[in-house]
Amino acid sequence: MTAVAWNGGTFRFLDQTLLPHEEKYIDTCDHRVVAEAIAALRIRGAPAIGVAAAFGLVLALTPGSTLAEMRRQLSEARKTLAGTRPTAVNLFHALERMQRTADCLPERTSPEDFRKALLEQALEIQQEDIEACRKIGQFGASLIVPHSSVLTHCNAGALATAGQGTALSVITTAAGQGKIVRVYADETRPLLQGARLTSWELVKAGIDVVLITDNTAGWVLRKGKVQAVVVGADRIARNGDTANKIGTYPLAVLARRHGVPFYVAAPTSTLDAAIGTGEDIVIEERDPAEVTHVAGKRIAPEGVNVFAPAFDVTPNDLITAIVSEKGIAHPPFAESLACWTEQKKAGTG
Amino acid sequence: MTAVAWNGGTFRFLDQTLLPHEEKYIDTCDHRVVAEAIAALRIRGAPAIGVAAAFGLVLALTPGSTLAEMRRQLSEARKTLAGTRPTAVNLFHALERMQRTADCLPERTSPEDFRKALLEQALEIQQEDIEACRKIGQFGASLIVPHSSVLTHCNAGALATAGQGTALSVITTAAGQGKIVRVYADETRPLLQGARLTSWELVKAGIDVVLITDNTAGWVLRKGKVQAVVVGADRIARNGDTANKIGTYPLAVLARRHGVPFYVAAPTSTLDAAIGTGEDIVIEERDPAEVTHVAGKRIAPEGVNVFAPAFDVTPNDLITAIVSEKGIAHPPFAESLACWTEQKKAGTG
Repeated sequence: MTAVAWNGGTFRFLDQTLLPHEEKYIDTCDHRVVAEAIAALRIRGAPAIGVAAAFGLVLALTPGSTLAEMRRQLSEARKTLAGTRPTAVNLFHALERMQRTADCLPERTSPEDFRKALLEQALEIQQEDIEACRKIGQFGASLIVPHSSVLTHCNAGALATAGQGTALSVITTAAGQGKIVRVYADETRPLLQGARLTSWELVKAGIDVVLITDNTAGWVLRKGKVQAVVVGADRIARNGDTANKIGTYPLAVLARRHGVPFYVAAPTSTLDAAIGTGEDIVIEERDPAEVTHVAGKRIAPEGVNVFAPAFDVTPNDLITAIVSEKGIAHPPFAESLACWTEQKKAGTG
Repeated sequence: MTAVAWNGGTFRFLDQTLLPHEEKYIDTCDHRVVAEAIAALRIRGAPAIGVAAAFGLVLALTPGSTLAEMRRQLSEARKTLAGTRPTAVNLFHALERMQRTADCLPERTSPEDFRKALLEQALEIQQEDIEACRKIGQFGASLIVPHSSVLTHCNAGALATAGQGTALSVITTAAGQGKIVRVYADETRPLLQGARLTSWELVKAGIDVVLITDNTAGWVLRKGKVQAVVVGADRIARNGDTANKIGTYPLAVLARRHGVPFYVAAPTSTLDAAIGTGEDIVIEERDPAEVTHVAGKRIAPEGVNVFAPAFDVTPNDLITAIVSEKGIAHPPFAESLACWTEQKKAGTG
């Protein structure tokens, strides 16, 4: 099962809104289909969004166009894709990286070579994500104590990346090492990524998964049922403050209260070196209908207001460690994350 | 709108599973219908369950029976009703109180007078609950600072009592005094009592209500959007440890972290003087289907396990005050609650 991938000339993605009932793959040559899929959460998860956006830009380049036309197509598609979701920084990183590739190509480049160079860059972004997921799993698994049960929130699995996931890569790698007793999966309202996606991935992987409502996680921690909390991330500030799916922050508070380590797993493409703290992270607000309706049925009365932030920010002091493809960062994160950013700039990472 | 009431010879209740779509009242002469309604959460909320159980016992007494037959009917109905839900102590208090009334009636009592005495006791339980709700509102409103927005969980409103509610009585009374800006209502998975019931009551009352997913409450507190958290209770131990709907405990932890007062509102019939701490409270586990299915549709894959406790226990040290019809109890609750219990025993309350 691959959530997002290049498929010999077209872009293929799994429509995650249909899971767990239907495993439907969509092949498209249209970057607007990719943009709609990101906005509607058919494609979701910060790393997967980044990879999808990169391929989306490639799709926008119409064969037969001149180079000037292709540059215009790129610019317009970039705007469309950038307008889909504001919080996951991987999206913007991927778009910028593709743009830099285009900017570096000389004006004498043929349109065919222009498109080929951008496709190669997108394939490289995909390949790096696959490799990052694998390494995150290995580094993260070293943090998991044998005979652990772990708690996770939302879906940071294969469905959220081009590879084997971030938080779930840690969990499945640790499970492969025989360390995991069971996984508690928060259902993750409103869109139920935990119930629909994480449960589905873990059942498929043969790992014992216990689904809980989000408001049960506190009691699970209080009762000593889990030895670690592992989550993904949508954007990480220079000081380690981490934006992730709404409901992550209260988990971190509760984990701290009960002395349970709280781990964030994400590729370095999730780091936003441009912002100092979580205060500067833009938090997307979703359509109220996602809360007032479930499975197409209205559950709340007319006349009710809704507050539906898609993410919250967990302050760095509640995070035990951040795991990326470069290793394990411990507090103070301002220092440990700066090392990763420097490595990236220097191209030594 | 009255959730539970005696209606001239029959017992009338609102089927809350149909809200907010349909406001359907059911009149019944059958205590087994009452028991089923409690088990299926057509009637829910600790005080309402107590009142319904009392009337259920009256319904079990078949006119035309001998006194000995009525005593048998009472005993059997008591078993049936006691088996519906284990956590809300009001149920057991009401059943015991009805039994004491029966036990005190002399053997020469006519069957008609026996039934009449039990009906009077049930009506008294109902009347006391109505009065308790009113007083809880008045005492509790005094704790609410002007210009407050408040957060509540599940439904502790008119739908949960024979009167105007417990936590919601505090809120609507404070709103009547012009103190409330808006109310944040946790949707309260799995059965969505906040979305379906609390929102419905507050919209009807003309109070600004903002519906949030349970996992958004932490962010609402972090962002300083609320000045108080007010919840109901299903059972309160001698030391103040409080069982309430699953998800209450994490709210209390988060309220403490953000310096927001956390109030519990409940009649003294919710106190369980028989138990010292929350450790001894039996926590009901619900049917996994309540988590794996929403609005009749399966949301989770086959093969997933579920942990579905209906309640959690908030330790007394996280509770700012407990409000009952007798006033406001402050820590140490072992002392302040003991005063209420003594008053109740002495019949001076």
